[in-house]
Amino acid sequence: MTGFPCKPASQVTSDDFFFSGFTNEANTSSNDFGSFVTPGNVEAFPGLNTLGISMNRVDIAPGGINPPHHHPRASEAGVVVQGQVLVGFVTTAGVYHSRVLAASEMFVIPRGLVHFQLNVGIEKAILITSFNSQLPGSVVAPLALFAAEPSVPDRVLAKSFLVGEDVVRSIKAKFIR
Amino acid sequence: MTGFPCKPASQVTSDDFFFSGFTNEANTSSNDFGSFVTPGNVEAFPGLNTLGISMNRVDIAPGGINPPHHHPRASEAGVVVQGQVLVGFVTTAGVYHSRVLAASEMFVIPRGLVHFQLNVGIEKAILITSFNSQLPGSVVAPLALFAAEPSVPDRVLAKSFLVGEDVVRSIKAKFIR
Amino acid sequence: MTGFPCKPASQVTSDDFFFSGFTNEANTSSNDFGSFVTPGNVEAFPGLNTLGISMNRVDIAPGGINPPHHHPRASEAGVVVQGQVLVGFVTTAGVYHSRVLAASEMFVIPRGLVHFQLNVGIEKAILITSFNSQLPGSVVAPLALFAAEPSVPDRVLAKSFLVGEDVVRSIKAKFIR
Amino acid sequence: MTGFPCKPASQVTSDDFFFSGFTNEANTSSNDFGSFVTPGNVEAFPGLNTLGISMNRVDIAPGGINPPHHHPRASEAGVVVQGQVLVGFVTTAGVYHSRVLAASEMFVIPRGLVHFQLNVGIEKAILITSFNSQLPGSVVAPLALFAAEPSVPDRVLAKSFLVGEDVVRSIKAKFIR
Amino acid sequence: MTGFPCKPASQVTSDDFFFSGFTNEANTSSNDFGSFVTPGNVEAFPGLNTLGISMNRVDIAPGGINPPHHHPRASEAGVVVQGQVLVGFVTTAGVYHSRVLAASEMFVIPRGLVHFQLNVGIEKAILITSFNSQLPGSVVAPLALFAAEPSVPDRVLAKSFLVGEDVVRSIKAKFIR
Amino acid sequence: MTGFPCKPASQVTSDDFFFSGFTNEANTSSNDFGSFVTPGNVEAFPGLNTLGISMNRVDIAPGGINPPHHHPRASEAGVVVQGQVLVGFVTTAGVYHSRVLAASEMFVIPRGLVHFQLNVGIEKAILITSFNSQLPGSVVAPLALFAAEPSVPDRVLAKSFLVGEDVVRSIKAKFIR
Repeated sequence: MTGFPCKPASQVTSDDFFFSGFTNEANTSSNDFGSFVTPGNVEAFPGLNTLGISMNRVDIAPGGINPPHHHPRASEAGVVVQGQVLVGFVTTAGVYHSRVLAASEMFVIPRGLVHFQLNVGIEKAILITSFNSQLPGSVVAPLALFAAEPSVPDRVLAKSFLVGEDVVRSIKAKFIR
Repeated sequence: MTGFPCKPASQVTSDDFFFSGFTNEANTSSNDFGSFVTPGNVEAFPGLNTLGISMNRVDIAPGGINPPHHHPRASEAGVVVQGQVLVGFVTTAGVYHSRVLAASEMFVIPRGLVHFQLNVGIEKAILITSFNSQLPGSVVAPLALFAAEPSVPDRVLAKSFLVGEDVVRSIKAKFIR
Repeated sequence: MTGFPCKPASQVTSDDFFFSGFTNEANTSSNDFGSFVTPGNVEAFPGLNTLGISMNRVDIAPGGINPPHHHPRASEAGVVVQGQVLVGFVTTAGVYHSRVLAASEMFVIPRGLVHFQLNVGIEKAILITSFNSQLPGSVVAPLALFAAEPSVPDRVLAKSFLVGEDVVRSIKAKFIR
Repeated sequence: MTGFPCKPASQVTSDDFFFSGFTNEANTSSNDFGSFVTPGNVEAFPGLNTLGISMNRVDIAPGGINPPHHHPRASEAGVVVQGQVLVGFVTTAGVYHSRVLAASEMFVIPRGLVHFQLNVGIEKAILITSFNSQLPGSVVAPLALFAAEPSVPDRVLAKSFLVGEDVVRSIKAKFIR
Repeated sequence: MTGFPCKPASQVTSDDFFFSGFTNEANTSSNDFGSFVTPGNVEAFPGLNTLGISMNRVDIAPGGINPPHHHPRASEAGVVVQGQVLVGFVTTAGVYHSRVLAASEMFVIPRGLVHFQLNVGIEKAILITSFNSQLPGSVVAPLALFAAEPSVPDRVLAKSFLVGEDVVRSIKAKFIR
Repeated sequence: MTGFPCKPASQVTSDDFFFSGFTNEANTSSNDFGSFVTPGNVEAFPGLNTLGISMNRVDIAPGGINPPHHHPRASEAGVVVQGQVLVGFVTTAGVYHSRVLAASEMFVIPRGLVHFQLNVGIEKAILITSFNSQLPGSVVAPLALFAAEPSVPDRVLAKSFLVGEDVVRSIKAKFIR
């Protein structure tokens, strides 16, 4: 990102403060996880610039997962709008906290902790999440480790997950398109 | 508020990070405005402590209004979950921005600006709002000006709204229970 | 505002750090309130850029008022330099705090709360106020509500102040020039 | 400092937000510099707690000086209320900026820079200064270097000011009471 | 963590500001990774309280790794004091950046990004790292995912790494003691 | 400084995150103090931009000193890598804290306090210091007071150090090249 200069005040319009990007149902079949995150961050919704806040819409197919990830620059709060969702995260002390949430239930993920949302119901799940950053960023653990470009060396991952490099290569292969 | 000391780590449980306060439909008939705000802030949901984020559920009856107010300590982003809502705010330069939002549409209110939400549809409206503060606070303009305790002097309000003190007293009377 | 880029260091001069905008007595007859605020913020005094601080000079004629307003981005502290001034503000819990201050007395207004200063003496009053923002902004309640452009809908204000739309229109008319 | 817990909301009174500590003329003869700083920080005025702002009253006798000092935790803005004052500071690049200010003129000192105020007029000078911290702290260069307890080693000061240790000792002796 | 109240000023001593915890060579054989991190954070060195800074000493045996991890609350800068170390991290856009560093070379890891240090030399490696938080926290990816307590469900990890649950269980088994 | 715009993401390379400026031994004979500070701040290492962190390498010849200075925008933590160093600082209450540190010992200097490092050993000393700012700045007390350009008036310094102007001029003369 190269920074978001503010518009001259004379060019600001009401449209700058409203965003329709969440109105379409997301396609949850476009990836391996059965989920899709529609960002309402400053890149999608420039009116958020300097305001330190953003939201996402998360769609998860039945059995799908928003895989373990963390946001480097924000805490997250969210509400399940539809469906039944297992929300879990792990603290810096290695404690796993989780609960199955129904519609209208709220959760919070402290800044930077790894968390996931798994649709454990039989219908599509939809969540609205919010962040105290206009560009929270997201690091999806399996993708950052096994699907980066250039690739993280097999040796690094093998030593880290205590597996053979063949196992590392087989996991990496799953993420190649 | 007298501060929210952190729990000892040994006493933290998964329940601390989940909140069910938004699951019940709010009673929008309990006040003059036909709306009700259910707070998901640190006072209601202590697990938000130190995390700098919170959310509200806003219910508005048809024709009801979440009256002009501002949050002293937060920007706000929100999504209409159900209904048709006129969302408006006024900038520090005195420019009024507004739009009628349908379900899944998002808005942002820059920190500290006066804004309102008016249900312009025929069904109940529900919004999920979020804040980049664990305790954003809320100052409802008509209440702060005309219903404070002790009362803001009539003279102050008459001079400020360029009306007679009788008009001030008649408005104040509406807010007395 | 479109941002205030820093000067190249080679072009900075001593003049950048001093400001004479408060030396002239303000004209308190130019508006309905009998008061005038001379800003010493980053727009008037660019040397404040990045420093997170600013000051105002407030002149109030006898009987005049700096009407109820709040600063979206700053707490305020101030000192009465001359005159007798009723300083009041309302908390987020709806509590009205106030005191009549004489010269050299200090007050503080927590971030974002609605406050006013009323000259209750017989001479002109002067205050020096300070802010922990280089551009605190100001939202004057009667102007934001009844004098915005475009106009906040009568219906919104009528529902919010529990008055008829005719009352709203009569107040709005006072603010039209 | 051991922290300033907030009062319970039920015990807060209007008195908490007003401060009369600046109303008395300070005694500028109590020290070697002919000046006196009356703090309006959170230690003197507890209502500033959590608000990130404070003010000082500075009295300087003719020919007196508020000696070179810096505030570790705040930028400073100030206004000369009475008198003629030479205000100077030095940047991190070693550039000295200064101006003689008359009443109602304003200055700003960027965070942490060494600055002073010298009364160059014939009457007492009074300044109101403000800070974007509730406890900005103050490090007075000659006192921190030559009057600390325990004493900074002579060797350290001699090497730093490129003088003999005898010169260091003679300066230290001036600050001993 | 339950907060670190400040000491009364009268009880502060010089010892509070100095820390000897980095003087002993760490045992890099106590875990599977061949590395050991000695924290110089506020829990080990309470004098850091409120100062927003901390440091670590990292010892890595030849061939050992400080496995992929991130710090939820801090950016990191570091210097290799001894040895040859491959330092790598992955951006939120999935780009892997790395370099082999020799003694006295410096690196930076932007806030919250996953990074590792691998000793690629033949002698023990030592790094000094620094953080802009007094308690940056650390989330070690393999441990957070495969060794949390309670355990992250096999189903979650299988879906996330696109492997069978048997592979998940075999990795988890490696981390059980 | 005129600001550091971010590179377009497409132009970022791995080299942006690594810095070799600390690998050369510094020349400690180039100044009067027998010490040299090699900055690893955003001006030297642009990849630190927006990250709020930086480091320095400090070389001090035997008997040399990194003279009393403070950083206007950062707390400092540091580790002695080689040698024996007296580290001292003075609090805002005028208390001098110090200790002689050996290799691998750590210290912290709270934000903005005046501190120094004196090599009290017989070999060259090297320290790695870190800051919670990408550009902490440095104000060296003897240089800011006696070697600024333009010069701080003799009268100011004489009144502040309680010495004659002749003493001020003799000290200033030492710093002229």
